[in-house]
Amino acid sequence: MKIFISSTGLYLPPRIENNTEVASRIGKSEDWIEKKSGVLERRVSDIDVDAMGAIAGKKALGKNNKPDLIINASGVPKQAIPDTSIFFQKEMGFEGIPSFSIHSTCLSFITAFHTAGSLIQSNTYKKILIISSDRGTVGRNFNEPESASLLGDGAAAVLVEPTKENINSKLIYFNMMTWPSGSELTEVRGGGTNKHPQDSETSISDNLFTMDGPGIYKIARKQVYRMMLKTLKSTGLSQKDIDWVVPHQASGKAVDAYVYSGKFAKEKVVNIVGKYGNCVAASLPMALTIAIQEKRIKRGDLVLLIGTGAGLSAACALIRY
Amino acid sequence: MKIFISSTGLYLPPRIENNTEVASRIGKSEDWIEKKSGVLERRVSDIDVDAMGAIAGKKALGKNNKPDLIINASGVPKQAIPDTSIFFQKEMGFEGIPSFSIHSTCLSFITAFHTAGSLIQSNTYKKILIISSDRGTVGRNFNEPESASLLGDGAAAVLVEPTKENINSKLIYFNMMTWPSGSELTEVRGGGTNKHPQDSETSISDNLFTMDGPGIYKIARKQVYRMMLKTLKSTGLSQKDIDWVVPHQASGKAVDAYVYSGKFAKEKVVNIVGKYGNCVAASLPMALTIAIQEKRIKRGDLVLLIGTGAGLSAACALIRY
Repeated sequence: MKIFISSTGLYLPPRIENNTEVASRIGKSEDWIEKKSGVLERRVSDIDVDAMGAIAGKKALGKNNKPDLIINASGVPKQAIPDTSIFFQKEMGFEGIPSFSIHSTCLSFITAFHTAGSLIQSNTYKKILIISSDRGTVGRNFNEPESASLLGDGAAAVLVEPTKENINSKLIYFNMMTWPSGSELTEVRGGGTNKHPQDSETSISDNLFTMDGPGIYKIARKQVYRMMLKTLKSTGLSQKDIDWVVPHQASGKAVDAYVYSGKFAKEKVVNIVGKYGNCVAASLPMALTIAIQEKRIKRGDLVLLIGTGAGLSAACALIRY
Repeated sequence: MKIFISSTGLYLPPRIENNTEVASRIGKSEDWIEKKSGVLERRVSDIDVDAMGAIAGKKALGKNNKPDLIINASGVPKQAIPDTSIFFQKEMGFEGIPSFSIHSTCLSFITAFHTAGSLIQSNTYKKILIISSDRGTVGRNFNEPESASLLGDGAAAVLVEPTKENINSKLIYFNMMTWPSGSELTEVRGGGTNKHPQDSETSISDNLFTMDGPGIYKIARKQVYRMMLKTLKSTGLSQKDIDWVVPHQASGKAVDAYVYSGKFAKEKVVNIVGKYGNCVAASLPMALTIAIQEKRIKRGDLVLLIGTGAGLSAACALIRY
């Protein structure tokens, strides 16, 4: 698909929470957190997901730039109705721009990016703003030390347009698979018709994030590895041809798996999990945006976006940036 | 776009709730309900949205048919994480099929249908199952008589495929607009990071459906009328050329507006609101499926799918069925 990322925007909440603070809340040591999650510090937002995403969106748009579609690609919404895209548009001060949400938890950005490509290719839209904004710290369960130490807050936005004539950017390959046998490995059971707040059997923990890290890792490492091999085979490429791997920042161990199992050179794998934690759907576009803005990822580079999400799902998109 | 609806499926919960029952819970008369909402009876589901949607999905698929993508296009999810598409797949007994959610509240089906068209046109998928399943009765606020009397439960599914050579089916035209100035007209404020159940300021009513019917009607009638005129102008058609109007079943008054303001013949406007109420995102595909299964909508007919959703958004899709 002849589409390209014309600009990017980021919102990093200013408040930094270090492992000393988290350790006291989960009853574990700082060493335990670092070893289990790979997270050294995370951001905690004092503003809600809509305001966070709107800042990232405005930065991606720059001055005098208006998208013709806004897609919310976050993990958890601001509220059940209306969908978060409405609130992004409201915070950015626009009216009349079509907007909706695409949700596949931590893979929402990859899914939305590929969908945006199809919508551009069908000539429906020409300037699509994708925003991923997550505030996972609100849903931390401090009785579940591993996931509570992982989660952080952040937002990122990218503007997707048809490729200009003088550049070679494109979406080369996309794949996604979902295995619902893993649906209980990552959950927030509240928020909908299941475990409704009115139901007397609903507990506080039903509204908090729960994750079986080792359970996911066991399935995910194998399935993501297979998907990666299929991607390389389908495109006739090898690990060495890929300039950058931008994985979902699930945990330190999950990101390192692209090096130790995936056989990508360590310096090619964008790793922001130590500094920002797992920011749910925002993690992947945050890692992409940071690597672009630090001028590590350059125009023409081959970039593999890849990861797993609740479901359990795995997805990847190979782009020439 | 050369796509067509190859089959449809429906789930109507067996339990019928009449206005006598609702009247006693909202402190109004049966006449008041009929006059305000246009609803005579509604279905109340004893199974959750995933089981409801899976029944509709299985019916659409028939025997030995497996989709290559499942899109959840509902208004309210089963739970925050993972997204409801996972649970549809699980209930249908599949593994490995990519699945995600598209959310624009009551317009989720129109948005998902157009997106499915783009995804088929980009050759990513060839058999997309869209499922809309809503159980609005769980979120009824009996202190808000008008919306409480409107909501009903139901599910519908359609299978979308590339158009076969011997038929003329296609998606002719699509349009969507969103005005976030109307974001407070229809809300469920809970379910995400806003009004979190852990927050002491969150009340029970924050997790229930709230709607300013007259406020929406005032804006929606004008905006939907404009969108309808634009659709006719862009396609060179007049009201008389359209064989069927399938509107979102927002209320009796909202459906009747297509006759009195929209100038479509009454017998062309599919109206199921009296019998099933407003089933949120499921309303529109339910109306479409019922009209197809009753052999009113036939192959080759020009069908206008149109409506409004929380946001406030308006959208339409003109198809040759």
